[in-house]
Amino acid sequence: MSERIHNLSPGPAVLPLEVLEIVRENILNFSGSGLGVMELSHRGKEFRRIIDEANLTLRKLLNISDDYAVIYMTGGATNQFSAVPMNLLSEKTCGNYILSGVWAQKAIEEAKRLGRLHLAGSSKEQQYKCLPKDISLSNDAGYLHFTSNNTACGTQYLSEPECPANVPLVCDASSDLLCRPLDVKKYGIIYAGAQKNIGTSGVTLVIIRKDLLERIPENLPLLLDYRSYTNFESMVNTPPCLPIYILCETLKWVERSGGTAEMFKRNQEKATLLYDAIDSSEFYQGHAEPECRSLMNVTFGLHDTSLESKFL
Amino acid sequence: MSERIHNLSPGPAVLPLEVLEIVRENILNFSGSGLGVMELSHRGKEFRRIIDEANLTLRKLLNISDDYAVIYMTGGATNQFSAVPMNLLSEKTCGNYILSGVWAQKAIEEAKRLGRLHLAGSSKEQQYKCLPKDISLSNDAGYLHFTSNNTACGTQYLSEPECPANVPLVCDASSDLLCRPLDVKKYGIIYAGAQKNIGTSGVTLVIIRKDLLERIPENLPLLLDYRSYTNFESMVNTPPCLPIYILCETLKWVERSGGTAEMFKRNQEKATLLYDAIDSSEFYQGHAEPECRSLMNVTFGLHDTSLESKFL
Repeated sequence: MSERIHNLSPGPAVLPLEVLEIVRENILNFSGSGLGVMELSHRGKEFRRIIDEANLTLRKLLNISDDYAVIYMTGGATNQFSAVPMNLLSEKTCGNYILSGVWAQKAIEEAKRLGRLHLAGSSKEQQYKCLPKDISLSNDAGYLHFTSNNTACGTQYLSEPECPANVPLVCDASSDLLCRPLDVKKYGIIYAGAQKNIGTSGVTLVIIRKDLLERIPENLPLLLDYRSYTNFESMVNTPPCLPIYILCETLKWVERSGGTAEMFKRNQEKATLLYDAIDSSEFYQGHAEPECRSLMNVTFGLHDTSLESKFL
Repeated sequence: MSERIHNLSPGPAVLPLEVLEIVRENILNFSGSGLGVMELSHRGKEFRRIIDEANLTLRKLLNISDDYAVIYMTGGATNQFSAVPMNLLSEKTCGNYILSGVWAQKAIEEAKRLGRLHLAGSSKEQQYKCLPKDISLSNDAGYLHFTSNNTACGTQYLSEPECPANVPLVCDASSDLLCRPLDVKKYGIIYAGAQKNIGTSGVTLVIIRKDLLERIPENLPLLLDYRSYTNFESMVNTPPCLPIYILCETLKWVERSGGTAEMFKRNQEKATLLYDAIDSSEFYQGHAEPECRSLMNVTFGLHDTSLESKFL
């Protein structure tokens, strides 16, 4: 596969070659079923097996307890920017947000339109070069939302921000889910569009603590109500079957490769290599503060900023 | 491909073999780009070309004028059941619906939760064996919604229900779009989940008359607002890239095969063959009334209904 190139673009990322080969193998005939994988009925036993395997593998990889539901939605993180306040807030509670970069900003803009909002912390004044240091929640916090990895800024939470036990912690993990072991019990909701780390665009993985389902108000649009998925095993309507299959194969690949501990090791090694090169260079200059640096997105500029546009 | 089987199940349908072969060919390396089709950035020129080609091909196939926008959403028809009332209704207007089968019923249930509703016609008392005959709109009709093909009932509109010019006609065409030439000018909105006729699940095609965008109220959830798609060429966030690619290849296949006129001819031939066999049989019995019969879903039972469970 010498012709495969590096992808440094925004949006969908590269997938493991092994996963692509398995997908290719099943486009015309899935597991000898006589139908291609995207032609299977979502009500049939073959697709049932795919979604069960995805659930099981994810639960194993992140050690997810039965207190949590795993569901498959669409619309990426953007749809969750709406779903989180719509499902979790009441008249009496307010969404608390940590502003650590452009994706957090987008989540905040959407939450502002749909409910009340409190900014619990921000590193905007530091040009997002670090993670916000002082986090202060409102008394009526319905949840605390943060973005675990800030792609364009190059910062990442390698442990969770502090959050009182009675406030659900909500995490947009779209660009770093499975990059490291995670203590799911610390979270109320973890969501991730699949296209960065765990598959292809078109499916969003949501891990939600089941007790939170009781707060959901009535009369939300059907596909924005988390219960439409938890009550029907993500099949209230035809789900995005092919993206779910690719997600499943990617999860199985992570498991075969050694799980999240091994992913963490690989990401650390790759990042160290790049940051060492940047730090020892008189030409390149790291963007994020060293203690907040992302293992997923290594951001840098040039010491001589006047050369940057030429460099790009 | 002697091992390929027939798919008589609900949900996703079979795709043309040619389309599957093209998809398979591009999983590892799209058009020599060095990246698989699902690894392309949605902001890059290759994906831009895919979405432009899908637009152009669809516009040609259905002769769509510039008065209409073509957009790609997610969540299938179910998401449109919410989007249509949320985008088109005001305090003063009411959604008008034709109840012709189980999918129309679902659209109605969702619309009832989200706004005011008027039942403009129904064939429920006829067990959906025919299309509703008397259509009567309310004075405050914001639109008239109908389901063009009723899968489980086996009825189909081969021409549009009558609708006053000042009321937008909205059509769920999920199971028969492109099965025949269509006069798009008669419609306000046509939507279709791709998995039955025009691709794979995970993408929903929406054709919307642009003047309707002016009615959309503020502060809808971002991905339920049609303008989020029309304003950003369906890329306000990462779209379902692989399903859009497969949709594009299916549209191109329809065009190569002779377009909607040829599809109509093929569907008529196939349906005639089946209905003739049913009508001349003393064993089988057609479900739908002959003048309302669907070219897409041929429904039948047995004359001796006591044998039906054994037959299945």
